[in-house]
Amino acid sequence: MATYVSFTAGAGGEWRIERLNAVRGESLAPAPRLARVEHDGEHAAPANGGAAWTLRGVRSYDRYTTAAEKAQLASLSPDLGRASATVGVLIPLAKSPAWWALAADERRAILEDRSRHIATGAAYLPAIARRLYHGRDLGEPWDFLTWFELADADRDAFAELVARLRASEEWQYVTREVEIWVAR
Amino acid sequence: MATYVSFTAGAGGEWRIERLNAVRGESLAPAPRLARVEHDGEHAAPANGGAAWTLRGVRSYDRYTTAAEKAQLASLSPDLGRASATVGVLIPLAKSPAWWALAADERRAILEDRSRHIATGAAYLPAIARRLYHGRDLGEPWDFLTWFELADADRDAFAELVARLRASEEWQYVTREVEIWVAR
Repeated sequence: MATYVSFTAGAGGEWRIERLNAVRGESLAPAPRLARVEHDGEHAAPANGGAAWTLRGVRSYDRYTTAAEKAQLASLSPDLGRASATVGVLIPLAKSPAWWALAADERRAILEDRSRHIATGAAYLPAIARRLYHGRDLGEPWDFLTWFELADADRDAFAELVARLRASEEWQYVTREVEIWVAR
Repeated sequence: MATYVSFTAGAGGEWRIERLNAVRGESLAPAPRLARVEHDGEHAAPANGGAAWTLRGVRSYDRYTTAAEKAQLASLSPDLGRASATVGVLIPLAKSPAWWALAADERRAILEDRSRHIATGAAYLPAIARRLYHGRDLGEPWDFLTWFELADADRDAFAELVARLRASEEWQYVTREVEIWVAR
């Protein structure tokens, strides 16, 4: 059974929204708090009366990760919800039609062989925990929602991580990206 | 915008259902006719009052196809809806948790390097037209819905194609499969 997520911005939720940075394209509306809720049914999203926005995604199988990379990531990745991880970042992101029209080996070559996306993320483990959700096949405006959890002391490391990715060839295909910093 | 499909079995639809073969696992309920409707919104499925069943999927980007394979398939693949293609086959299929837990390179190695899934399908083009829809991330019970269109004279070729695939290593991961023959 697939696991879905709803990120709802509004009056409630565990996380206080510190700021929204529109990295590329249109931003999202400001709101005081953010809730991240995982649920089994696609349409069983939490009540969002009065929400500023709700972003939906689904946990899914690995699209590009090799067995060696998967084993490395599994050995390094912490669980979400660590007491020390008082900071969260949600990054919704969309890629261009040109990206999605590429063949699978072309996307893998750009993403990892030339842009080192997987290796770069691994270099910041276990400090920066990460969970990827897919939105494209759900008809959402965002192809991906990536959720990060980190300690307050690792904010600069996070900024370095995303700066490295944004300088890569892969990011030439990014059409819209927002960075949402939250704390609890 | 994503394109979704609904296959609805019931009293109406362009295609008369000839027979349902449960290849592996539980079959689907019998019905007189089948409608295949593509639509832009995930939830804008056609009315299905009294339908025996409705299967949903989404057209999506290539998961395993290389640039060379993609170019070959594009050059060989006919459009759907040829006047000569009076026979259709719908194959809903689900794979095991073990398949989905594999890394991307392991799945590619099984699917193509060892099972020749893409090359085998290409060998029957342009006679047997094919369109793949994904259901897994939609929370559907079927991971894939594959729709084929062929001439009456190519029924035996189709039987040979699926026999070759079912003898492959990839099919060890198939947990449920039904073959639905239709004609118009």
